[in-house]
Amino acid sequence: MENNHGLLIVISGPSGAGKGTLCQELLRQMPDLRYSVSSTTRCPRPGEVEGIHYYFRQRQEFEVMLARDEMLEWAEFCDHYYGTPRFAVEQAIKDGMDVILEIEIQGALQIKKRFPQGVFTFIVPPSLDVLSERIHKRGTESEEVIQKRLATAIRELEYVTEYDYVVINDEVPLAVDKLKSILVAEKCRVKRKPFVFKGEYK
Amino acid sequence: MENNHGLLIVISGPSGAGKGTLCQELLRQMPDLRYSVSSTTRCPRPGEVEGIHYYFRQRQEFEVMLARDEMLEWAEFCDHYYGTPRFAVEQAIKDGMDVILEIEIQGALQIKKRFPQGVFTFIVPPSLDVLSERIHKRGTESEEVIQKRLATAIRELEYVTEYDYVVINDEVPLAVDKLKSILVAEKCRVKRKPFVFKGEYK
Repeated sequence: MENNHGLLIVISGPSGAGKGTLCQELLRQMPDLRYSVSSTTRCPRPGEVEGIHYYFRQRQEFEVMLARDEMLEWAEFCDHYYGTPRFAVEQAIKDGMDVILEIEIQGALQIKKRFPQGVFTFIVPPSLDVLSERIHKRGTESEEVIQKRLATAIRELEYVTEYDYVVINDEVPLAVDKLKSILVAEKCRVKRKPFVFKGEYK
Repeated sequence: MENNHGLLIVISGPSGAGKGTLCQELLRQMPDLRYSVSSTTRCPRPGEVEGIHYYFRQRQEFEVMLARDEMLEWAEFCDHYYGTPRFAVEQAIKDGMDVILEIEIQGALQIKKRFPQGVFTFIVPPSLDVLSERIHKRGTESEEVIQKRLATAIRELEYVTEYDYVVINDEVPLAVDKLKSILVAEKCRVKRKPFVFKGEYK
């Protein structure tokens, strides 16, 4: 009865919603979950490691990959490219692994077109104050960039209607529990299962 | 941001799937969940209590309630009426309570027409052997009735495609955890939320 294909779980939402923290915690609690590492043309922030947080690529390299249609989704955000290499994600899902993708909104909407069977979850901050605070706390960009990010984030909240689920990231453990429940529930969805009963379900 | 209305969780599936056991355990673990007590014209089984397991009604009384459209759903199953009094369920949901309904398949399909926003979950036994064993274990009916129930149950498995979720009732704790996850996940669904962001979500 089980469908052998894994789930593609897309975690998205505005900058400052806390997507990264939630994904890290989810991966810690669910070691079988595969994290899809994105490519980007932005510079690494302190502590970010090539191949773990991102594949850091030159602008020209990225554009070659786009031309070859090697990206499952891609977006330009704050003057940088972000994208998801196609092959690794598709292969893992076919092998029955669940793959988690943390991406910006533009990328998520592209995935939705190519993979409507994905699980699209929108993470939102509990309040505007918290959103502003989180974006400031990163402290790696100029105030001008921060204000631009904040304005974009507020505008992006409206995209929630494009998603299947919304999780308010107030307390991390609670939000992670909700994400885990979403994963479990989606695996029980009838539409995901080829229902064949021949005396038993296997 | 929260929708004040509760969820209607419909737990259904063939006889012998173990719906009753799962519902009892779910209610034990989630005391805020409201159980919708059904009316029936069948006789109480040993241990069944009026108003807790069922409202036991005479055939004539039941038909009067039907004529007055006081049933949210009803069905005739193995020569007995089963039904759900409409008012109590609707009121609880409007008051923000989650209501769990354990019903036969015919009833569930009627509810789906009247409440497409309900959460329709189909419980299935892990195998035909287990199904047969469970139906026999009740030991309250003649072999003829048991065989009739078993044949009906197998035929009814095909109705799974009408449901949102399917849970294989192999081990009760695992199945209950899945039901809890379905509840949590459904509360995160974007389509259930009037999304209004005015600086914060309340």
